[in-house]
Amino acid sequence: MRTFPEHLADAQKTTGSSLCVGLDPDPARLPGCLSGLPLGDAVRRFCLDIIEATIPFACAFKANLAFFENLGTSGPAVLKDIVKAVPTNRILVADGKRGDIGNTARIYARAVFGELNCGACTVSPYMGRDAVTPFLEWPGRCAFVLVRTSNTGAGEIQNLMAGDRPLFEHVAGKLPDWAEGKPGTVGAVVGATKPDAIRKTRELLGPLPLLIPGVGAQGGKVDAVLAAAEGGPILVNNSRQILYASSDSDYASAAEAVAAAMASQLRV
Amino acid sequence: MRTFPEHLADAQKTTGSSLCVGLDPDPARLPGCLSGLPLGDAVRRFCLDIIEATIPFACAFKANLAFFENLGTSGPAVLKDIVKAVPTNRILVADGKRGDIGNTARIYARAVFGELNCGACTVSPYMGRDAVTPFLEWPGRCAFVLVRTSNTGAGEIQNLMAGDRPLFEHVAGKLPDWAEGKPGTVGAVVGATKPDAIRKTRELLGPLPLLIPGVGAQGGKVDAVLAAAEGGPILVNNSRQILYASSDSDYASAAEAVAAAMASQLRV
Repeated sequence: MRTFPEHLADAQKTTGSSLCVGLDPDPARLPGCLSGLPLGDAVRRFCLDIIEATIPFACAFKANLAFFENLGTSGPAVLKDIVKAVPTNRILVADGKRGDIGNTARIYARAVFGELNCGACTVSPYMGRDAVTPFLEWPGRCAFVLVRTSNTGAGEIQNLMAGDRPLFEHVAGKLPDWAEGKPGTVGAVVGATKPDAIRKTRELLGPLPLLIPGVGAQGGKVDAVLAAAEGGPILVNNSRQILYASSDSDYASAAEAVAAAMASQLRV
Repeated sequence: MRTFPEHLADAQKTTGSSLCVGLDPDPARLPGCLSGLPLGDAVRRFCLDIIEATIPFACAFKANLAFFENLGTSGPAVLKDIVKAVPTNRILVADGKRGDIGNTARIYARAVFGELNCGACTVSPYMGRDAVTPFLEWPGRCAFVLVRTSNTGAGEIQNLMAGDRPLFEHVAGKLPDWAEGKPGTVGAVVGATKPDAIRKTRELLGPLPLLIPGVGAQGGKVDAVLAAAEGGPILVNNSRQILYASSDSDYASAAEAVAAAMASQLRV
């Protein structure tokens, strides 16, 4: 069985880019031409069209689970159709930032890697080692652990100085230990708005994969990100600039154009 | 509209106890008599029977969302049936420990308070203020923020000393500020295995409600918890001792007996 880093390398070789297209289908921002459909059907149509239009350029897709939970009973079926639409030479990241006691973390891992069959997911480190390690028991999959996120309030917690280092560096520093004996199963989430944190995380983690959201709508600059992340594979996520490139019926071709332009900045 | 603390007080007055029954329906531990059913139906039957049997004693129920996600397409419908089974003079806590950037947190809050119509939920503080405050925009509902959890690995992160205090005290100390102008919308999760942390959190938060899991299977002692938490309302959660009191067809009456005994220790 291929390891996750091999899977990622295959996906990046196929597309020539580190672009990850984020699927955050906000009901308030769906193209008007889909408004006649029940919400679950509109989200399914929208996501499948975005995947089809951007797949030549995207080595990965990231499904933001909040937007599917919000669909209620139709959510899991829509997610399953998205899983089916992402071929095995791409990555699908289930972005749920789960984190719970070991007994529960095992079930979350089974839900996302077993039931849903995603290649990767995101995990929160606040509850410590036993909230993360059950996700590392799935060979060939990867749990991207939140280290330094891109949002405005993140620093209030993640930059708290504990001894001589901010909290996020403590978290990053623990990942190799947590993943001991489970090579290729862990990565880190570091926001594109914080190149210094990306550089520091790369230093601490060596060649582990980094998932880097926040390019685009959140303000992260591509050049600074690429320079800071050198030394290992990255997945650079953009959601809103691609998804909402047009609010008209040309949304798929508009998304394609934006994704193509981003991919050309994110060559691997 | 009643505030969440009023809702909680009503529920505790009705039942005379602070017992919260945790719904963590582990497929591997369901009673054998339900094994002929499809998993979603078995989980529904099991949870509804547990609710019916324990509702005289439980002021609240806590649905662990992992176990419903793991059901795939049937999960949301089973959850909705559980919501329907919990009357308005009880509390239903959606335990998902969500935490994401503001734009996504708003959708998680809508999923759990709007779409699912739960009275409370759990939230992770790792991403800071904007990951939490969207949950506080729902008057009458409550977000219990993780402060000091009961699991074995929690201390590695939550007890990191930042300045003169461990991380969890920093988190607790921020909650009143995060909830400013939104009275009654925030509470804290503190594990029953850490009475000192409960006492400290109570000191920092005054009369805010505390959700206290970890009594029972995780080893927390009731007397120590009650003494440490004095000064405000609590919800004391037990899942496994109640749910799995019997693995035979008498599981509901066995759960009832355990819940009754626990409620008598948790009088309010």
